[in-house]
Amino acid sequence: MRVLLVGATGMLGTEIKRILEPGHEVITASRKGSDVSVDLSDKASIVAMYEKVGKVGAVVCVGGAAKFAPLDSLADDDYAFSLANKLMGQVNLVRCGIGHVDEGGSITLTSGTLAQQPMVGSGAVSIVNAGVEGFVRVAALELQGKLRVNVVSPGWVAETLASMGKDASQGIAAADVAKVYKRAVDETMTGQTLPAAKT
Amino acid sequence: MRVLLVGATGMLGTEIKRILEPGHEVITASRKGSDVSVDLSDKASIVAMYEKVGKVGAVVCVGGAAKFAPLDSLADDDYAFSLANKLMGQVNLVRCGIGHVDEGGSITLTSGTLAQQPMVGSGAVSIVNAGVEGFVRVAALELQGKLRVNVVSPGWVAETLASMGKDASQGIAAADVAKVYKRAVDETMTGQTLPAAKT
Repeated sequence: MRVLLVGATGMLGTEIKRILEPGHEVITASRKGSDVSVDLSDKASIVAMYEKVGKVGAVVCVGGAAKFAPLDSLADDDYAFSLANKLMGQVNLVRCGIGHVDEGGSITLTSGTLAQQPMVGSGAVSIVNAGVEGFVRVAALELQGKLRVNVVSPGWVAETLASMGKDASQGIAAADVAKVYKRAVDETMTGQTLPAAKT
Repeated sequence: MRVLLVGATGMLGTEIKRILEPGHEVITASRKGSDVSVDLSDKASIVAMYEKVGKVGAVVCVGGAAKFAPLDSLADDDYAFSLANKLMGQVNLVRCGIGHVDEGGSITLTSGTLAQQPMVGSGAVSIVNAGVEGFVRVAALELQGKLRVNVVSPGWVAETLASMGKDASQGIAAADVAKVYKRAVDETMTGQTLPAAKT
């Protein structure tokens, strides 16, 4: 199957590419350094990406940024950036993907554990992650029979914790997070928020 | 206590005013026809409202609009309207309320059952409702000890169902929803999503 992987150059994207490649043809997309360039915050750029790539069997998005800062530092622009990027970027990936993903194919988005578990600094991130999950439930319902739509909610990733100088053993390995994205591509679920956290 | 009630002229607002008034001084706000006029989608208008009203002990928001339409009819503007209004309007009510609400006071926002229960047509509404709930969890955490922040999640309201020609017995009476807002004002919880649905 042709799989369009958005956010392919990041740490998780790299692992997802690695785990999907034996069974699928992975087309990479990101702002720079991939088969196709895309700016998630720009809908026209998403449309252009789909036109360039042609039909695919699945889309996986592990891109999208949101601003992490305490409430008293989060400015109007930080909320606007976060909503335009990780939230509406992923919403638009679904909206614009209809017709570009094979009937019965899938789109898998990314939220994160901050959707449910608040943290000092996650005001904008928690809005975005919870919003993406809310949208996925509706999109899956409305597109039932045509397109599966799911969202993976990664917990803290071990490699991220290590890079922050924190205890990596509290996190899930990026390679294990990637397995959850693979399940969303290869299995048959739809409308699900799939946790990918240290158990 | 002085309670600022945003969205006071709507059906739920009317019931909340009625149930709060015996114990509190209710200052009403809405686009038109209240003590203070406010446009939730305009942050400057929220700031002006707080300046006009002065210090309050609690804020209750039951206002805020989001567009209900199937995915293939929801336009870019519909998402933008929904995010600016019911989502960022309520987020800004909290952001701008700091300093205008007495220490130990509360802000109570509104989401809705579509945050968790998808429905054909709720693409934008579900994003907004889930996003508000995500934000409230973080705001309550960061403002702990200063300000309580909660969100009421009403299910289908009996009077709304009746006005749509549907079976009102499947819904919760507006007066019963109002009791949940009153609990958020009078009790001590924070960071909670309080369901107000037919049991």
